[in-house]
Amino acid sequence: MRAIIPRKIKGFRDTNPEMNKLRWKIINSASKIYQKYGFEHWDTPILEYADCLGKFLPDTETVEEGVYLFRNPEKEPVIGLDGKELRDKKWNKVILENHFLTLRYDLTAPLARNYAEQLWEKKSRNQLIPTKAPLFRRYQYGPVYRYEQKLDPGRFREFWQLDFDTVGSDDVSVDAEVCMILADAMESIGLKRRNYIVKVNNRKILKGFLNSVGVKKEENEQSILRVIDKLDKIGISGLEDELGNGRIDETSGAQIPGLKLDKQLITDILNFLESFISKNSREILLKELIAKEYKNKIYNEGIDELEKINEILSSLDFNENRIIFDPTLVRGMSYYTGPVFEVESTQSYFDEKGRERKVGSICGGGRFDDLVQRLLGIEVPATGASIGVDRIAELLIQTKQIQIESSGPVMIIVFDNKLMPEYQKIAKELRDANIDTEIYYGFQKGLKKQLSYADRKNCPLAILLGEDEIKKGVVTIRNLRLGKKMSSEISDKTEWKNKVQVEVPKNELIKHVVSTIN
Amino acid sequence: MRAIIPRKIKGFRDTNPEMNKLRWKIINSASKIYQKYGFEHWDTPILEYADCLGKFLPDTETVEEGVYLFRNPEKEPVIGLDGKELRDKKWNKVILENHFLTLRYDLTAPLARNYAEQLWEKKSRNQLIPTKAPLFRRYQYGPVYRYEQKLDPGRFREFWQLDFDTVGSDDVSVDAEVCMILADAMESIGLKRRNYIVKVNNRKILKGFLNSVGVKKEENEQSILRVIDKLDKIGISGLEDELGNGRIDETSGAQIPGLKLDKQLITDILNFLESFISKNSREILLKELIAKEYKNKIYNEGIDELEKINEILSSLDFNENRIIFDPTLVRGMSYYTGPVFEVESTQSYFDEKGRERKVGSICGGGRFDDLVQRLLGIEVPATGASIGVDRIAELLIQTKQIQIESSGPVMIIVFDNKLMPEYQKIAKELRDANIDTEIYYGFQKGLKKQLSYADRKNCPLAILLGEDEIKKGVVTIRNLRLGKKMSSEISDKTEWKNKVQVEVPKNELIKHVVSTIN
Repeated sequence: MRAIIPRKIKGFRDTNPEMNKLRWKIINSASKIYQKYGFEHWDTPILEYADCLGKFLPDTETVEEGVYLFRNPEKEPVIGLDGKELRDKKWNKVILENHFLTLRYDLTAPLARNYAEQLWEKKSRNQLIPTKAPLFRRYQYGPVYRYEQKLDPGRFREFWQLDFDTVGSDDVSVDAEVCMILADAMESIGLKRRNYIVKVNNRKILKGFLNSVGVKKEENEQSILRVIDKLDKIGISGLEDELGNGRIDETSGAQIPGLKLDKQLITDILNFLESFISKNSREILLKELIAKEYKNKIYNEGIDELEKINEILSSLDFNENRIIFDPTLVRGMSYYTGPVFEVESTQSYFDEKGRERKVGSICGGGRFDDLVQRLLGIEVPATGASIGVDRIAELLIQTKQIQIESSGPVMIIVFDNKLMPEYQKIAKELRDANIDTEIYYGFQKGLKKQLSYADRKNCPLAILLGEDEIKKGVVTIRNLRLGKKMSSEISDKTEWKNKVQVEVPKNELIKHVVSTIN
Repeated sequence: MRAIIPRKIKGFRDTNPEMNKLRWKIINSASKIYQKYGFEHWDTPILEYADCLGKFLPDTETVEEGVYLFRNPEKEPVIGLDGKELRDKKWNKVILENHFLTLRYDLTAPLARNYAEQLWEKKSRNQLIPTKAPLFRRYQYGPVYRYEQKLDPGRFREFWQLDFDTVGSDDVSVDAEVCMILADAMESIGLKRRNYIVKVNNRKILKGFLNSVGVKKEENEQSILRVIDKLDKIGISGLEDELGNGRIDETSGAQIPGLKLDKQLITDILNFLESFISKNSREILLKELIAKEYKNKIYNEGIDELEKINEILSSLDFNENRIIFDPTLVRGMSYYTGPVFEVESTQSYFDEKGRERKVGSICGGGRFDDLVQRLLGIEVPATGASIGVDRIAELLIQTKQIQIESSGPVMIIVFDNKLMPEYQKIAKELRDANIDTEIYYGFQKGLKKQLSYADRKNCPLAILLGEDEIKKGVVTIRNLRLGKKMSSEISDKTEWKNKVQVEVPKNELIKHVVSTIN
């Protein structure tokens, strides 16, 4: 028989009360902003059919990379193009197979499935699918799953996202709205202005530019975009190498193959990108993009859209201290078709080895006009973004930016199990007065052990009650927070006790507890 | 190529805003009660190693039944009893295999893994595992997964639970506390007293009784308990059949095999159970249990524990209108070793076919003194319970017991895309005044379509604004709620419009919107 060692799968973790408080503070604050813009809360399953979600992860070539894929334990009918079960020709029997299941890798693909399914059900009730997709605006949060082989520190296979999307609108005003929501959400979470920046680009501009310098094939375009996406990490010279003959990664020593592009094309790409670096005025950037005079329809569509976004943002005072244009921004997901968004944290912190670090990208999004179409057949434009909940929690922890009030319960110390009915009565009295209260039930009954348990839970005070106190009709309250502070200041034990402990009549307990907590 | 039909796996579902509001109302209300008793919020992964969670589902004999089981796509070392990687003898190479993974089937087994792992890590840092298990009190919520073959209506493979547990205490006071928490939680959710009842039993009483009437083998005991567990569904006569030669299920017509017990044993069991049916006084029940005078250690331990629980409950005024003893209660999970708990909804409702229905059991729990031991080697007593979040949501929906305030955003009707900057400004003004506001971005621009979208989202009012209004410096507000109500009362269109629509100066917009909403 094998030993059962208690352990978790690599990249999965348990979250403690502090992390959970942060996670939910982020989710609740940002959700309120989403609601403020009219989004409703929907949820979808964590396990889905793999074919329904598709595979749109960046930097991975095959389905198996990056996505958790399992065989369905149960055989099910294969459904044909007409929506009906396929049958074998000889015996006319329904064909059964074990479909592939997957843990959702994001919340966008399930949204597309959910939206398409709602319309599909109409069809199966013999109602027409409308020629123009109906409007649907939802937000959703929860864990997503990436089957990553390489797990850098701080990266996980299970992590939380908080998405909002508008399906059924091609209006670029919605893309402008996405930027505003992201900026508002960051501040509602507690990030100060200038500690974050919303970056916006339009895939059409990069696509149009690449088209006009000779890149016509979709797959070449995608490979070049994947390299440009690394600009932040590897800089212009790294980019030059990866577009050319490849490079050797400094930290890992791994050989990274290059795209072996034409010299002239590389120069064109680098010149295009360099001209935008560190330019923050949206107006000036737009002027420069126009000045390049690429006679390319897609390129100019891209500029038009950014112009409209700028117009809305500026008229509502969302300025460059919150939202900038960045023509070098790609965002990895290959399903994006137009405007793309990213929120970057501009703060840095020092890790345990004293190295300066940045969390970097904390939100991402974009327009995905084709994602629903593959399931439904009709054109369904959509746009939205995703907040990296756990990334922001990490940021808040590392930069010590937010004080989460984490006050534990009042702890009733158990000196004598015979007094349990008395402890229970006091606990009930406190709880009825809306004060969180715990009776210590553990095995290790020493006062020290009980107090260290209370300390770990950040309890504000302990209640001490023995036979003596009961006879006198009193209760002792020890102020644990004050006690901790005083222990470095007062060395005399009796003096310390007099400062942090008070004996009060039993009928004044609530009054004293309330005044000690506040 | 296969068609991609948008669909979900059987037993999985999308939840809409109304369901999500209910789900979170339940979770937030009950979590507050848990906190009030000193529990902290922990979370664990949804995917785990199957061997770490074990298999403790009722009514299923093999691991594959009831539990989602997948092969880990990645090969990992096999860990030996000593906690070290196993190596093959010939080449001294680490043995790799694809472990089994599982979607957690409840939140109790992951708690045991989490607790054991925290202590295990101490050991791996060469610290001693304490001989007495440390105290750990946590609550947790989230989806759990059951690979059920038969899905009755209202049953799902993915559903939400909300658990609280105390690990590291054998004090029966904690079991009494579990009952109180369940009762308090039900009322915090909005269930009225007498619409729910907390039932308590002690497995030791059933076990001791079965021992003393001749059932000595663990497996026989478990099979008999599994049958007794069905008492609520099949009644005493159904029980008699299943303990004897089996029966035919009325609805499905299926042949259910019996245990073929001895006639005398069946009579003993039925007499024992029947003597307790419909007796609600905890005192009287305890007296009857004692009067049976079974000279069995376990039986009498069970009674002692119930007596202590009764003492605490009665002294704190948790009476039989909230918590009763039920010696026929089993609770399915085979990991329970002592007191078991269940909350039953006593309300019924009528389904769409007019049949009277009950939701029945909405919470369950018990003491599980062996669950951590299998991972850690040392004795770790534990007790707690689980709230069936989705079950209660279903109950609240069916009995129309709770009005969830579901007010949508203010809807700005888009008459003319040229006026978008104007719409945006009004939206920002409203949002800045903390009023949820949506601009209609959909394709279908007819006023009727826009209003029916607002109606579906339960919007309180719509803002109408065209060129004319802008020239006049006014805005039209339509009260949608009043409009709905009036439409059955007033047939004249102009009169109706006068009642539900008002034209206000633009600078008084906020004031009018606020007074219309409230």
